Amino acid sequence: MTLTLHCAPRTCALASLIALEDAGADYQLARVDFGSGEQRSPKYLSVNPKGRVPALVTQRGVLTETPAILAFIAQSFPSAKLAPLDDPFAFAQLQSLNAYLCSTVHVAHAHRHRGARWADEPASFADMTRRVTANMAQCFELIETKMFAGPWAMGADYSVADAYLFTVSVWLSGDGVDIARFPRVAEFAERMKRRDSVKRAFEKEAA
Amino acid sequence: MTLTLHCAPRTCALASLIALEDAGADYQLARVDFGSGEQRSPKYLSVNPKGRVPALVTQRGVLTETPAILAFIAQSFPSAKLAPLDDPFAFAQLQSLNAYLCSTVHVAHAHRHRGARWADEPASFADMTRRVTANMAQCFELIETKMFAGPWAMGADYSVADAYLFTVSVWLSGDGVDIARFPRVAEFAERMKRRDSVKRAFEKEAA
Repeated sequence: MTLTLHCAPRTCALASLIALEDAGADYQLARVDFGSGEQRSPKYLSVNPKGRVPALVTQRGVLTETPAILAFIAQSFPSAKLAPLDDPFAFAQLQSLNAYLCSTVHVAHAHRHRGARWADEPASFADMTRRVTANMAQCFELIETKMFAGPWAMGADYSVADAYLFTVSVWLSGDGVDIARFPRVAEFAERMKRRDSVKRAFEKEAA
Repeated sequence: MTLTLHCAPRTCALASLIALEDAGADYQLARVDFGSGEQRSPKYLSVNPKGRVPALVTQRGVLTETPAILAFIAQSFPSAKLAPLDDPFAFAQLQSLNAYLCSTVHVAHAHRHRGARWADEPASFADMTRRVTANMAQCFELIETKMFAGPWAMGADYSVADAYLFTVSVWLSGDGVDIARFPRVAEFAERMKRRDSVKRAFEKEAA
């Protein structure tokens, strides 16, 4: 299977990139230059009309949205054991964390610089920006105490949810939250950084 | 399998309720009274620490987040054929729509009345509220032209994504968007209202 992942540094596309590395997938990277607004170019909009990353081009079409791409990678490379594919309840728990990361945590983070998505006035943007530290801390407090099973997000087995949780945890520092407040997540994030798949993903993202 | 769905009227929990009806599941409803703030009660927070609906109580534990619950219902009741379970790409397409509905469309809608999640000033809330009509219309323009395959969301076969898309489409009117602007989605929504599962879901939600 030949896959192409459209990505940009410091975005949630890192989660899909790590998962492709974990899967041992045959894939190419296509970098989208957010600095020049390439995500809004007609060429990129023909790939992903949302004008966002990630987008995973497959032989059957384009997939978008991180939770969908992560489940697709896990199901397409079952020997990599990246999700509990034969257990609907355990798979749903994994997907629940992924849905929380995309609908609540990523959205909380996006209010720092992307207020123009939801309002028009500079004063509103500043108001939203001020809340990001508290909101991200609240999200990770819930993750630390209620969602993170340990040693991996879902428990004994590494999964694509770890790639996603790690990706979002990388944003904490820039959002004014010290990850050390969440010792279990902090230890997990350090362990993630030592994984070969994560090292390769960072190298390829930056290349 | 005995299941209990915690829900409240006019929330995204309707999607899970419709899916349980579609599946022919043996389940109970537990209504959470948002009017009295029951979602923030210690009793409910012990079910779902997020203080939100839906929450699906199963014999193995509680599941939250609509996309995760919908995939769980589809996988747990395979004979109901509510998702392309044996086709990772088609399943990912379905999940991509569900992720878009939860992370972008529901979030766009929530800025109408839930601005206090992301800001502190009344002027910011009013600014957010003013943008909701335009943002919801933009989301449904993309759904109408790029995502909705027809006659059902994913194409020839009904799926749990239809339950979710219908649920979110119900909010359009209150958000100041005339669904008639999106003729394919509008026809779909009318067809959904005639389904027995949807009629039963509305009856049970209101009971």
